[in-house]
Amino acid sequence: MQAVYNIAEICAQMGITDVVLSPGSRCAPLTISFARHPALTVRTVPDERAAAFIGLGLAQSQRRAVALVCTSGTAGLNYAPAVAEAYFQQIPLVVFTADRPPEWIDQLDGQTIRQADLYGAHAKGTFTFPADTSHADAKWHSARLVSEAINLAQQFPAGPVQVNVPLREPFYPKAGEELRFEPVRVIRETPSLPTLPGPELLALQQALRQAGRVLVVAGQHRHDDALLLALRQFSAAYQVPVVGDVIANLHQPVGATYDLRTAPLSKQDVFLAVPEPGLKQALRPELLITFGQSLISKALKLYLRDAQPAQHWHVQAAGPVADTFKSLTRIIRLEPTTFFEQLVATGRSSAGRVAGASGSTDGSEAANPGSTPSVTTPRLEWPASGWGLSEQEAETTAAYATPWYKAESWAKEFLQRFLSQAEQPFNEFTAFHHTLRHLPEGAALHLANSMAVRYANILGVPDNRAVEVFANRGTSGIDGCTSTAVGAALAQPERPVVLLTGDVAFFYDRNAFWQNYPTPNLRVVLFNNHAGGIFRLIDGPRQQPELEEFFETHQPLTAENTARDFGLRYFTATTFAELKLALSAFFAPVSGAALLEITTDSATNAAFFEEYRQAVKTAFV
Amino acid sequence: MQAVYNIAEICAQMGITDVVLSPGSRCAPLTISFARHPALTVRTVPDERAAAFIGLGLAQSQRRAVALVCTSGTAGLNYAPAVAEAYFQQIPLVVFTADRPPEWIDQLDGQTIRQADLYGAHAKGTFTFPADTSHADAKWHSARLVSEAINLAQQFPAGPVQVNVPLREPFYPKAGEELRFEPVRVIRETPSLPTLPGPELLALQQALRQAGRVLVVAGQHRHDDALLLALRQFSAAYQVPVVGDVIANLHQPVGATYDLRTAPLSKQDVFLAVPEPGLKQALRPELLITFGQSLISKALKLYLRDAQPAQHWHVQAAGPVADTFKSLTRIIRLEPTTFFEQLVATGRSSAGRVAGASGSTDGSEAANPGSTPSVTTPRLEWPASGWGLSEQEAETTAAYATPWYKAESWAKEFLQRFLSQAEQPFNEFTAFHHTLRHLPEGAALHLANSMAVRYANILGVPDNRAVEVFANRGTSGIDGCTSTAVGAALAQPERPVVLLTGDVAFFYDRNAFWQNYPTPNLRVVLFNNHAGGIFRLIDGPRQQPELEEFFETHQPLTAENTARDFGLRYFTATTFAELKLALSAFFAPVSGAALLEITTDSATNAAFFEEYRQAVKTAFV
Repeated sequence: MQAVYNIAEICAQMGITDVVLSPGSRCAPLTISFARHPALTVRTVPDERAAAFIGLGLAQSQRRAVALVCTSGTAGLNYAPAVAEAYFQQIPLVVFTADRPPEWIDQLDGQTIRQADLYGAHAKGTFTFPADTSHADAKWHSARLVSEAINLAQQFPAGPVQVNVPLREPFYPKAGEELRFEPVRVIRETPSLPTLPGPELLALQQALRQAGRVLVVAGQHRHDDALLLALRQFSAAYQVPVVGDVIANLHQPVGATYDLRTAPLSKQDVFLAVPEPGLKQALRPELLITFGQSLISKALKLYLRDAQPAQHWHVQAAGPVADTFKSLTRIIRLEPTTFFEQLVATGRSSAGRVAGASGSTDGSEAANPGSTPSVTTPRLEWPASGWGLSEQEAETTAAYATPWYKAESWAKEFLQRFLSQAEQPFNEFTAFHHTLRHLPEGAALHLANSMAVRYANILGVPDNRAVEVFANRGTSGIDGCTSTAVGAALAQPERPVVLLTGDVAFFYDRNAFWQNYPTPNLRVVLFNNHAGGIFRLIDGPRQQPELEEFFETHQPLTAENTARDFGLRYFTATTFAELKLALSAFFAPVSGAALLEITTDSATNAAFFEEYRQAVKTAFV
Repeated sequence: MQAVYNIAEICAQMGITDVVLSPGSRCAPLTISFARHPALTVRTVPDERAAAFIGLGLAQSQRRAVALVCTSGTAGLNYAPAVAEAYFQQIPLVVFTADRPPEWIDQLDGQTIRQADLYGAHAKGTFTFPADTSHADAKWHSARLVSEAINLAQQFPAGPVQVNVPLREPFYPKAGEELRFEPVRVIRETPSLPTLPGPELLALQQALRQAGRVLVVAGQHRHDDALLLALRQFSAAYQVPVVGDVIANLHQPVGATYDLRTAPLSKQDVFLAVPEPGLKQALRPELLITFGQSLISKALKLYLRDAQPAQHWHVQAAGPVADTFKSLTRIIRLEPTTFFEQLVATGRSSAGRVAGASGSTDGSEAANPGSTPSVTTPRLEWPASGWGLSEQEAETTAAYATPWYKAESWAKEFLQRFLSQAEQPFNEFTAFHHTLRHLPEGAALHLANSMAVRYANILGVPDNRAVEVFANRGTSGIDGCTSTAVGAALAQPERPVVLLTGDVAFFYDRNAFWQNYPTPNLRVVLFNNHAGGIFRLIDGPRQQPELEEFFETHQPLTAENTARDFGLRYFTATTFAELKLALSAFFAPVSGAALLEITTDSATNAAFFEEYRQAVKTAFV
C-alpha cells in the first residue's frame, strides 16, 4: 500500500495544496493518506457532482491544480460535467478514481463500472495505476505516472486528467497504525515562455501597420494586470480599439485612470444591437486580432462572422484553435501578454521611443494566487500619432477607432438613462443592474449560466473596484455554478465571493451547500423568476404552446427552506425599495454566508427586456 | 426538420410510450415533436441526472424502453450515472442528445462538448443522426438508425443506446405552425426464445443426476411468476435448494402456499454468518447453478468462492457472463425459465410421470407490464423420490437439501426472537424490520443503496403480499435511488411505490422531486442517522481517526424542509411507539406522496447491529 500512500506525498511535492474527497470504501487508502498528509488541505463533499465543481472553483481561484478523489462506480461519472467544464475552461484537475483491480471488472461486484478512460474526449489524458506494486519496475511506474499526470494537467492549455487506481483489500491500516510519508522522487516540469523571433515579429508588425482597420477582441480570460497593461500600451500605440466581454476581465483595475480612448470596450451587446448599417460599416475590421477563450456576446459573434475581416490572427501559445468567426488566417503561438508587449516594444523602437513598464514583474504579481489585484497603472498619454505609425497611418486607424469609442460612450449613456427611468415594474434586468453597482471591492464575481452571465455582459461590472469575473463558459452548463462559487469561497476566505444566479441553476446545484465547510465570505444573489426565464426572452420558444411546460419549466420553489437547511443568512426583495435596503445589509462585511432572493415575475421580466430591446433599436442617434 | 420530427413518430410506432425531456434550446425540435405526438406521454425534468434515473424507473417498471431527450453540452453527461446503471441493470433507454452540427464542434460556441460516443463503454451503441437530410439516402439513414437504436436497446441483454442529433437553426416552427406526423417505415425485431436441443438437454440432465449436491443461486431478477413456478417444480423434482437475495424476487407470490422444503431460501446473510465449519461443510455444493444478475449477500458470495464447487453452470440467454464465484465451468444459453422447465419436463418424462403446468401461459401473464401478480400456484406434493431420480440419488440430494432448510428455518426464528427483544434502544435495524412488516399489498419496493438494500436482504420482505423488489444494483450507486422510485411511481399510478432509503442517498438525489408531476402513490421512508452510517458498521473505517469527517461525513439535515419544498406529507418517528403509530397512517391508501423520516443515532445503530452480529455467531445450535 505504500505506493498508494505515496500519491499524496507526490501531490504535495508537486505543489498541490487542496484535495476534495467524496466518501467511499474502495478509496479508503487514498482518503486516509490524503487526510493525514500534513501539507494538504482536504475537504469531503458527499455529492460527487458538487465535489468536482467545488474542486474546479478551488483550482480556478488558486490558479493551480486540485486533486479529486472518489470511490469506484458511478462516483467518477458524477464528476463528468465538471471534468468537461475543466477541459474546455482549461483548469487543471487531477482526478483519482478508486477502482477494483482489473480481474474484478464485469464480475457483478458492487460499485464496479468500466473506469478506464472514463472521461473520453474530455480529459487531457488517463493513467492506470498498477494494481500490484511489488515489482520494482511497477513501483517506479506508480510514482512516475503521478508526476506525469500532474504535469500534463498543468501544461498549457491546462485541463483535467484521470488517474485510475485499482485497489485490493485490505483498504484500511490497522487501528492506530501510522502512515509513513517517505520522500519520493518527482519529475518537475519547468514551463517556458514562447517569444517571437525577430523576423517573424517584424513581419507581423509590418502586416499590422499595413492593415488599416485593426480590432482586438478578447475572449474569456482570467484577470491579469500585465496583460491589461500590455493591451493598453498596444491600443494606444496602434490606436486600436480593444473589445471584450465581461468575462474577459478587461475592466479597469483599482487606481487605473484610463484615457477613455484607450479603455477596452465592453458595451458591444448594446451598440451592435442597433440596426444601423452605417455604424456596422464604420466598425468593420480588416485585421481582427483575438486571444482568450469564448465570447458571450452573440451580437459580437454574429457581427464578426458577417463582417468577414480579410485577416484574423488568433494569439494562443499552444493547443487547438477555434475558427470562431469563420475568418481565421493565422495562429500566433504566443502568450497574449508577450504578443502585445513584443509588438509595442518593436513599434516603439522603430519609432525611436521607449516607454516604462515591461510588464514582467506585474506578471509574477498577477500569478500570486488569492491576492487582491492592487496594481496602480501609470496614466499613459495618448500620443499625437501611434508609436511607429506614420501620420497618415495614425489618421486612418484613429478614424477607425473613433466610431467604436463613440458607440461605447453612447451605449453607456443609453443604459444609464434607460435603467433609471422612474416608471418601471420590478424586474430582474434593473435589479441585476443595481446589484452589480453594489458589488464589494475586490469581489470574485461568479456569474451563473444562463441569464446571469448575459445580463452582466450587457450591464458590465464597476471599474476600479478590483472585481474579478468568473463563469463556467467552457461548456456553459448550469450544473455546477453554485459549487464553483463555493470552491472559490473556500479558496479565498478573505475575499468576498459573490454568485449571481437564476433559479434553475440554483436549485439544480443545491448540493453545493451540502458539506460541512463554512464559507462566511460567500454571497449568493438568486434571481428567482420561478422558471427558466431565458426561454421567454428568446424568439422561438415564446411563440410555442410548449413554452410554459417544456421550455420555461415553471417551478414554485423559493430558497427560504434551502437557506434554513444550510444556515445561510436569508434576505429577500420583491420591490426596488426592498432591494435597495437589502443590498447594503447583504453585502456588508459581516461574517456568515448569505443568500439574497430577488423574486420577479417571468412575464414582467420578458416585457421589460423587450422594451429595452426596442429602445436600443430606436434610441441610437 | 421533418426527419427530426419523424423520430417521435418512429419511437411511438416502435412501442415507446414514455419520454423524459429536460429543457433546452438546441433540443427544441425534439422537445416540440415529442410533446405534440399524440401517442407519447412526455414529462420534463430540469436536472438531467434525476431525469435519467426517472426514465430508468419508468423503463424498469414498465419493462419497455423509455426515451430521454436533452440539450447539448454537459446535459448529456449528467445522464451518465443513470446510463451506466441501465447498462449493468440491462434496462433499455434510448438517449437522444441534441448537438451542434459537426462543423461547430470545438469552435467555442456555448454548450458544446464532444458528444459522439458520450457514454463510452456504458452504452450498447451510439448512433449519429445525419446533420443534413436533404439527400434521399440521408433521409433513409435517419429513419433507419432510429429503428436500429431502439431494437439494439431492447435486445437481450437490454441496455442504453445514444442517438446524437446534430441540429441547425432555426429550431422552432413558426408560431401556430402545425407539425405533421407522417407514417414512417420502421424495422421491427421479433425476439426468439432459445431452447436446448434434445442431446444437450439429456447431457445436462445426466450431469445433474450424477451431481450429488446441487444448489441453485438466483441473482437479481425481476419478479416473474413463470420462473417462480418452474423453479419450484425444479426444486421439488430434484430436491435442490434454491437460494436468492431479496432482489431476486423469489418470495412467495400471493396465494401461493409452498411446502417449506421447496420454498426458496433467503436468510443466507444470517446463517452463513455462523462460524460453524460443520454447517459450512454440510452446505457445500458440488454443482452450482446460477441465473440472474448480482448478489447482495457478501456472506453468500464469499462462501461460494471459498466452497469452490466442482461445476458451476450459469444460465443466461446471451451477453457476457461473470465468473462471480471463481468456479464457472459452463454457460448455458437459455432463459432461466426455459432451462428449469426443460429440465423438469425431461426429468418427468424419463421417470414416466407428468405434472400440471407448463408455465408458458404464465409467462405471457407475467410479461403483462404493471399488473399486480396474481397467480395462485397449485400446491405441489413433495414426491417420495425426486422425479427421474433413483431412490439412492433422491436420498443423497435430500440429505444435501436438509441442512439448507434447517439453517433457513433456524435463521427465521433467530431473527424473530432477536428483533422482538423488549429492552432495546431505538435503532434503524429494528425500525427497518417493522417498516418491512407494514408494506402495503402489491407494493413496488425500491431499496436504496447502501444500507437499505443490505438490511432488507437480512430481514426479507413479507411473503404472499405481491411485493416486488427493485434496487439499482447494476452499479450500486446512491446517486439515483429516489429518482428511480419517482419514475416507478409515475409508471404505475395505481400501485403503491415504497422507497426505503438512507440520508446520504436521500439528500444526494433530492432533485428527484424537483418536477411538476404528482406521485400520490409514492411513500418514502427515510432512515436518517445524519451520516453514511454504513461506515460505522464495517470493520476498517470505524477504527480510523478519519471515521466521522471523511467516511461517515456527518450531515445535520432533516427532511422536513425538503418535504415542505415539494409538498410531501411529512411523518416522523424517533421511538418505537411513534414508529408504530406513524406506519399505519403513513402507508394508509390516502392519496398524496408522503415522507416518513425515522431518526436514529449512528452510534446506537452500530452498537445494536454489532449485538446482532455477535448473537448470530453464538446462537446457532
